[in-house]
Amino acid sequence: MDFEIANVEFTKEELIDFLLDIDESEIEEAIENIHPVDVLNALKETDEQTSQIILNKLPNEFIAMIIDEDDDENRYDFLIKFSENRQKDILSEMSSDEIADFIGQLDTEEKEEVLAKLSIEDKIEVHDLLQYDPETAGGIMATEFISIRENKTVYRTLEYLQIHAYDAEMAYYLYVIDKQNHLKGVVGLRNIVASSFDTLISEITNPNVVSINVNDDQENVAHVFSKYGYVMLPVVDDDNVIKGVVTVDDVMDIIKEESTEDIHRLAGLDEEEKVDGSLLDSLKSRLPWLSINLFSALLASSIVTHFSSTIQMVVALAAINPIIAGMGGNSGTQALTLMVRGIALGEINPKNAKKIFFKELGVGLFSGIIIGLLVGLGTHFFFGNFYLGLVAFLAMIGNMVVAVVAGYFVPLTLKKLNVDPALGSSIFVTTFTDCVGFFLFLSLATFFLPKLI
Amino acid sequence: MDFEIANVEFTKEELIDFLLDIDESEIEEAIENIHPVDVLNALKETDEQTSQIILNKLPNEFIAMIIDEDDDENRYDFLIKFSENRQKDILSEMSSDEIADFIGQLDTEEKEEVLAKLSIEDKIEVHDLLQYDPETAGGIMATEFISIRENKTVYRTLEYLQIHAYDAEMAYYLYVIDKQNHLKGVVGLRNIVASSFDTLISEITNPNVVSINVNDDQENVAHVFSKYGYVMLPVVDDDNVIKGVVTVDDVMDIIKEESTEDIHRLAGLDEEEKVDGSLLDSLKSRLPWLSINLFSALLASSIVTHFSSTIQMVVALAAINPIIAGMGGNSGTQALTLMVRGIALGEINPKNAKKIFFKELGVGLFSGIIIGLLVGLGTHFFFGNFYLGLVAFLAMIGNMVVAVVAGYFVPLTLKKLNVDPALGSSIFVTTFTDCVGFFLFLSLATFFLPKLI
Repeated sequence: MDFEIANVEFTKEELIDFLLDIDESEIEEAIENIHPVDVLNALKETDEQTSQIILNKLPNEFIAMIIDEDDDENRYDFLIKFSENRQKDILSEMSSDEIADFIGQLDTEEKEEVLAKLSIEDKIEVHDLLQYDPETAGGIMATEFISIRENKTVYRTLEYLQIHAYDAEMAYYLYVIDKQNHLKGVVGLRNIVASSFDTLISEITNPNVVSINVNDDQENVAHVFSKYGYVMLPVVDDDNVIKGVVTVDDVMDIIKEESTEDIHRLAGLDEEEKVDGSLLDSLKSRLPWLSINLFSALLASSIVTHFSSTIQMVVALAAINPIIAGMGGNSGTQALTLMVRGIALGEINPKNAKKIFFKELGVGLFSGIIIGLLVGLGTHFFFGNFYLGLVAFLAMIGNMVVAVVAGYFVPLTLKKLNVDPALGSSIFVTTFTDCVGFFLFLSLATFFLPKLI
Repeated sequence: MDFEIANVEFTKEELIDFLLDIDESEIEEAIENIHPVDVLNALKETDEQTSQIILNKLPNEFIAMIIDEDDDENRYDFLIKFSENRQKDILSEMSSDEIADFIGQLDTEEKEEVLAKLSIEDKIEVHDLLQYDPETAGGIMATEFISIRENKTVYRTLEYLQIHAYDAEMAYYLYVIDKQNHLKGVVGLRNIVASSFDTLISEITNPNVVSINVNDDQENVAHVFSKYGYVMLPVVDDDNVIKGVVTVDDVMDIIKEESTEDIHRLAGLDEEEKVDGSLLDSLKSRLPWLSINLFSALLASSIVTHFSSTIQMVVALAAINPIIAGMGGNSGTQALTLMVRGIALGEINPKNAKKIFFKELGVGLFSGIIIGLLVGLGTHFFFGNFYLGLVAFLAMIGNMVVAVVAGYFVPLTLKKLNVDPALGSSIFVTTFTDCVGFFLFLSLATFFLPKLI
């Protein structure tokens, strides 16, 4: 579906026509139930002039939401389409974390230019947020949340919310604080509406509030959310002073981002390459990895060259060689991928690591024997030489065992070195299996050479 | 962290000791702020006897939550640890979708046994839920939600919520329905608390409510949630009658599940293989894929055998051959992975598909030229033969172009055949690049043979 209003599906073209036709005085009500991301997608497929007419009609608040939905690299260009004054108005409609997100991607000059258009309070808040690493809780949190003191009644709190509920991102939870803004507890909106009007907030406050630290890595934040199924968590500094909140919609983006990163890195792609990106960006993303692969292939190839006199005598070796190396590579990639995903999902701990190692060793041994038997018997019958089959069988077992051991240790070692386990690990593992496969097979063949000729 | 109460970290052992020591009369209050998933994880590392002592103390509602957090395959065994009567009480604390989830995994006999322990209403609801495919909106929805009529005031609604708010999953939204349960609109809890007490629900109802159909695939449901950042959506049947709700915590699990599935399938692993699973399960997951790979390796190897007389004359070919095939494989895997992830994230549409094709073609051509030049020049200087370098150069370009074209078309074709694009696509692509690489290189070498000797 392109987008949908009251369960009727509209195309992007129909949305553009609708926005063009509508009178400026009616637009505010009309767009109330249209999502900014749909307008953004429709605008991207329209010509500049039509786009400008629609943007001029739309309220600043809606423009701010569209900018927030746009890709990082487009936001600045989108904003500067408007007059200086309108830019200021649009920025004033954005929350501090949205502005910080947006500004964080700009170069110094553009950053200064946008900062100059902010109100004093926004400037201070954005400046504070920019101090945090963008991949930590501080970097993704919003500073708009609702905090209350515990001596209020439910009735008074509802009156307060009737004024302030829209100041916050997803006001499903209210945070109870003391005079120094220390986080003391949490009250769900559900607890409030489920309590009689004269209930004191202190009676329904949960003092054992789970919080995340501003410096926690975003991947860990995502773990906590998905493990416990939270929709919102408060972010505190080292003194337990509440600084902001992280909401589940940001976490969903992180989960997707981190998965894409792993998938891309396992295949030797930059984490940021887009499927519909430019040719130049694709080449920049892929050529470095291909070059490293080439280096590893040359290394393996030099092993083959070393054995060229053996191959000249038994040319069948040239046909079987890639099977031994390739099957080892496949087996290593399986083990490695399972490890990388297991590490990413936090499923590997010191306790089960040993058990996993022995399981992998078993997998290498047994699949080596089974695949080795198939390859060995095939070789024996096809080339009519028992010893050639035996060499293939033994080399296959050896390479499969090396493959799973490499698949096990490479990601764990990278992790220990604080490098993403997905990064380059498949190149390490296949270099290993290529070199060891070629070497094992060809040196065994050289050893049995009298029997092979 | 193992788990955390009021920001103090506890180990699993400390949690077990805490639960052992505490008096049964105090346990209800004590566990209020401990998450069932933490208790579950701690119990898994305890002996049977200790575990039983703790389980006997815990309230039924908490046991029900623990069962819901456990892995599908363990739930039944966990439940039948208790007496018949206690099993009934525990089941009565679970929501209908939790029971349906749990029962859906059992064999017929076990299923009947559990169904017999349900109350009549639960039995009917569970029976209805079991009609839906578990991977659709109907299969993941909860049937506990709050619906209201629009002629109530905010004050009356709050009074109603004070009784019913805890009957529903995440009551952040209330659904406005007519007498036949048709979905008419939605009211956020935030709208309710932000409105004065005498406001009519009809004044704050959003009639343009986004909903999902019971038969929508769970992957599409996840798309809608993450695109728009929803926390909860109503599920309707074809007549727009509200059947249940899907909440964001279920969606997070789906996003992770679907990513794991893609990552596993790209590497030739069953989607369900666990990193800390058993040796037998691992072999069952990996051997079928390795066997298919073997078949494809034999195919490629037969091409090499076909050219054995050429190789016997120029043994250097045996060393260069795997480089041409392997680099093509890497390049194909890059293109393929980008396509598979792009399809999964819904980033590929008929409009940009053509542009992507020509970009990939360009990537294949340019990286073929660059990598081909490196390999060709290296070959030329190392083996001292210009024509051998030329053959490597041309074969590299040809194979790289074939690689990206295969990486582009294979996932799209699988998708069109309604097969998961990640499933087996890397085997297709590498079989292609191996065979084409070997064939191109060796037939070009045969053509230039007089110049190579």
